[in-house]
Amino acid sequence: MNVNEATGTTTATWLDTALGSGVRVFDLGRPLYRGMPQSPNHPPYWHTLPRRHGDMVRADGGSAAADHISLGTHVGTHIDAFSHVSHNGLMFGGVRADEAQRGGSMSSLGAETILPMFKRGVLLDVPRALGLTRCEPGYEITPDDLAHTARSQGTEVRQGDVVLIRSGWGEHFHAGAEVYTGHDSGVPGVGENGAYWLAGLDVHAAGADTIAFERLAPGQGHSLLPAHRVLLVEKGVHIIETMDLEELATAGVHEFLFVLSPLKLVGATGSPVRPLAVVPGANS
Amino acid sequence: MNVNEATGTTTATWLDTALGSGVRVFDLGRPLYRGMPQSPNHPPYWHTLPRRHGDMVRADGGSAAADHISLGTHVGTHIDAFSHVSHNGLMFGGVRADEAQRGGSMSSLGAETILPMFKRGVLLDVPRALGLTRCEPGYEITPDDLAHTARSQGTEVRQGDVVLIRSGWGEHFHAGAEVYTGHDSGVPGVGENGAYWLAGLDVHAAGADTIAFERLAPGQGHSLLPAHRVLLVEKGVHIIETMDLEELATAGVHEFLFVLSPLKLVGATGSPVRPLAVVPGANS
Amino acid sequence: MNVNEATGTTTATWLDTALGSGVRVFDLGRPLYRGMPQSPNHPPYWHTLPRRHGDMVRADGGSAAADHISLGTHVGTHIDAFSHVSHNGLMFGGVRADEAQRGGSMSSLGAETILPMFKRGVLLDVPRALGLTRCEPGYEITPDDLAHTARSQGTEVRQGDVVLIRSGWGEHFHAGAEVYTGHDSGVPGVGENGAYWLAGLDVHAAGADTIAFERLAPGQGHSLLPAHRVLLVEKGVHIIETMDLEELATAGVHEFLFVLSPLKLVGATGSPVRPLAVVPGANS
Amino acid sequence: MNVNEATGTTTATWLDTALGSGVRVFDLGRPLYRGMPQSPNHPPYWHTLPRRHGDMVRADGGSAAADHISLGTHVGTHIDAFSHVSHNGLMFGGVRADEAQRGGSMSSLGAETILPMFKRGVLLDVPRALGLTRCEPGYEITPDDLAHTARSQGTEVRQGDVVLIRSGWGEHFHAGAEVYTGHDSGVPGVGENGAYWLAGLDVHAAGADTIAFERLAPGQGHSLLPAHRVLLVEKGVHIIETMDLEELATAGVHEFLFVLSPLKLVGATGSPVRPLAVVPGANS
Repeated sequence: MNVNEATGTTTATWLDTALGSGVRVFDLGRPLYRGMPQSPNHPPYWHTLPRRHGDMVRADGGSAAADHISLGTHVGTHIDAFSHVSHNGLMFGGVRADEAQRGGSMSSLGAETILPMFKRGVLLDVPRALGLTRCEPGYEITPDDLAHTARSQGTEVRQGDVVLIRSGWGEHFHAGAEVYTGHDSGVPGVGENGAYWLAGLDVHAAGADTIAFERLAPGQGHSLLPAHRVLLVEKGVHIIETMDLEELATAGVHEFLFVLSPLKLVGATGSPVRPLAVVPGANS
Repeated sequence: MNVNEATGTTTATWLDTALGSGVRVFDLGRPLYRGMPQSPNHPPYWHTLPRRHGDMVRADGGSAAADHISLGTHVGTHIDAFSHVSHNGLMFGGVRADEAQRGGSMSSLGAETILPMFKRGVLLDVPRALGLTRCEPGYEITPDDLAHTARSQGTEVRQGDVVLIRSGWGEHFHAGAEVYTGHDSGVPGVGENGAYWLAGLDVHAAGADTIAFERLAPGQGHSLLPAHRVLLVEKGVHIIETMDLEELATAGVHEFLFVLSPLKLVGATGSPVRPLAVVPGANS
Repeated sequence: MNVNEATGTTTATWLDTALGSGVRVFDLGRPLYRGMPQSPNHPPYWHTLPRRHGDMVRADGGSAAADHISLGTHVGTHIDAFSHVSHNGLMFGGVRADEAQRGGSMSSLGAETILPMFKRGVLLDVPRALGLTRCEPGYEITPDDLAHTARSQGTEVRQGDVVLIRSGWGEHFHAGAEVYTGHDSGVPGVGENGAYWLAGLDVHAAGADTIAFERLAPGQGHSLLPAHRVLLVEKGVHIIETMDLEELATAGVHEFLFVLSPLKLVGATGSPVRPLAVVPGANS
Repeated sequence: MNVNEATGTTTATWLDTALGSGVRVFDLGRPLYRGMPQSPNHPPYWHTLPRRHGDMVRADGGSAAADHISLGTHVGTHIDAFSHVSHNGLMFGGVRADEAQRGGSMSSLGAETILPMFKRGVLLDVPRALGLTRCEPGYEITPDDLAHTARSQGTEVRQGDVVLIRSGWGEHFHAGAEVYTGHDSGVPGVGENGAYWLAGLDVHAAGADTIAFERLAPGQGHSLLPAHRVLLVEKGVHIIETMDLEELATAGVHEFLFVLSPLKLVGATGSPVRPLAVVPGANS
């Protein structure tokens, strides 16, 4: 029998509490399909079905189909490893990027080093707090916006939390890559100051409903990514992008158990993921 | 504030219980890397780093690296969608395989239809219960073995559980594909009877520490897969393969919160995953 | 010593004649690069450099770099195998498409069955003969146009020739996929009648400077491809697409040695190629 | 009418000579298929058929199938670009490897810079001249062996020729990767001295029937490749590998027109090819 030595709680009791009266699981991952919105800087997601039912039929009438997928690790809903970004040649913890990447696989800070997350999560629904449908294209979400949102929601951000910032941009996902990536219009998000605000609260990870997490100025593309530098290089805070935060926002759920389990892609700079937000209560 | 209407429990209280005194998260996923053991029937896992730090340096000194991955969906630790296997041309629920697969993407029962799992999980450590280091190559784990294991562990299998069956074969993962896939020797696992035993208990999903979940007879390869037929086609029970159950077994943890969140690969027949087993208590 | 028994010509003499006073080699292949114009129906061309110089340095100071490429077989300059197209379920020679393709590889008529070509080639420069810069978008090149072009050039089309039809559309290649594929505007080319005219002359293969060889009506995409049916399914004439015919046209070369050597891609429906047109005289 | 100004020869006359009494085309390319012998250092060749006949049937009864291929550029029969190998950081002509490869694509000496070959070719059938079935595993073919072979065949090697060196190892291609790549046994071929002998004759390119062109010592793998350094880095002579020279050798053809047309893979370090050897006389 498993007993938590600190509390004397058995796993059975704990499970009864966690699952006993049902849970509602919010799916924060976007579907992956050919032609989905993604950055043109990354290898395109491509799924095919090379083996089909009937190609080979076993003696007992059984048959199987199987896929091939080809993709970048920063497409779809995904998490950035610390090896994704460097500044003046150095990655998080002062690791030299040129040495780590020699050989074509990250010998330090690869995606396999991202720990699975089973953490308190909070949603900061910025447009709702600001009385908007969604933030304007290219709008920089400020520390004041974040603090105001947390206050108006009654949500405390604590050390070790995973903080998800809704800009409202996620509704554009189904409008195609042109609109969602905001190449011309820009995309809303936090900037350098918002990143420092998050890091100052010692959060574990931060996510958003946009393709690059942070604000993209109109017509600038990905030419400057200061929030990536602050979070990934200076402070060691993982970034999660292209999340689906709409159902969570609609349900008004601002506090939840956040679960994320990246694939252990050895030496990679990120991983596609399907994060979950879990609250007590039966699935609706 | 979120309140579970059935119990009056707030999310805050629930989170305090779930996370308050710490959790231990067991990682049940294998690392993915070039040359890892996988079935030769599926496209090989291949990771490369097409963009490296220094390739393009932004005005502020920032730079990024990014990957390409190419793989089958049945490589590494993975879950089978119901569209993976058919019997006499029909998939689970009587869906016609030829119609579902037309166009090269599954229009029914694709990987995007696998619900995330946040369930009670149990480990049946068969070799431990049988007094063995590991089951013999090609050994068929019987319903009696499963029942005996559950009994000797004091573990009850309940409706809706995710049941993980340890054969001990997982230790061979690092010995390479030849040994792990057991091409010549065979691989231990449940057979048709074991599958019916699991389905009879109405479990939600079943997993194992081997490449094909079920027993492979010596020299037979994948020529017959009766447990796949029973679980995927007849009974609608998902199968999880190539799991790492060693740490869980060593710690003697037989009951846990099982979390699995497959990628939403639209129209695919499976997904790579990194499942977690969570118990109360700090990570060791 | 090799001697042609029919003529007594030795290989040495033949080579002296063929090469003795120099040859000019026209390159009819388009470059392959990320983002090049290609049909969205086919897997995108993607080149990366997973291994770079310096990743691994040998004891003597040597190092190597190496690539990965991923592509459809109908991207860039390419040739269609007879297995590419079927009509009412049948391919060339009455081969059943469903049987040939079972298993995910063509057991008949695959790209490996395309014989290398070392043939007389002719260019029919249609816009030049019609007094145009290029044919209009969506214009159907008629048998009369083809006959008029051959006559005005003084070029005889003979049995066994490879006939290259210039529409002038090739200049759009560098204008990007939108323009080159003519999604909205349509693309000029032969239609059903032009295909029968070519087949009636018993040519070996036919090529063009467009993405689909044949005329695409404005706004119709690839919804009907009658010339493909005539040439690939009914008559057994290979089709070569996305050729660069500009240099040949500018030089006024209408008759040449045509050389094409498709990759022996077993079971594939086509192959990327780099065809050559060779004439006597030094390279300019 | 095209006239060679030096000789007054018309293209028509030239074609009559070149093609008039028939040609025999020897195919020097190996088939590409899943599981073919290739170096484990390069991305594996993988062909699938993502679109099949019947997936989408056009209004007129037409349907199409199409492929996806994924491969390294140094698999199957292929040619090395000068950007493939560097020595002490420099490539052919003193080009700095680190600068050329920045950005993940070769900005100098890429595969697109390899000119198509339409050249005199010679076969040096070393084992035949030495009275052997094939050279011993790991045997280094010396300059004396090459000179002796040329002499005994009565074949002169001239400036600008493409020289193909048969070791007899090609027969092992169908025995699988283990045997063909000679991981344990070593593979015969020229070494540093043979490379200097070839370069001293100012040949245009050199090819062989083995996976690495040059001799591989038993158990050494690719740890030292001096002939690559001499030919690719110092002398600017292209290398062609994994050729099929068996039919040519059996026919006793030692002099021929050699044709090779690499794909214009921009920025790549090599290209798969299907080289041809052409002689007068009808195909047998």
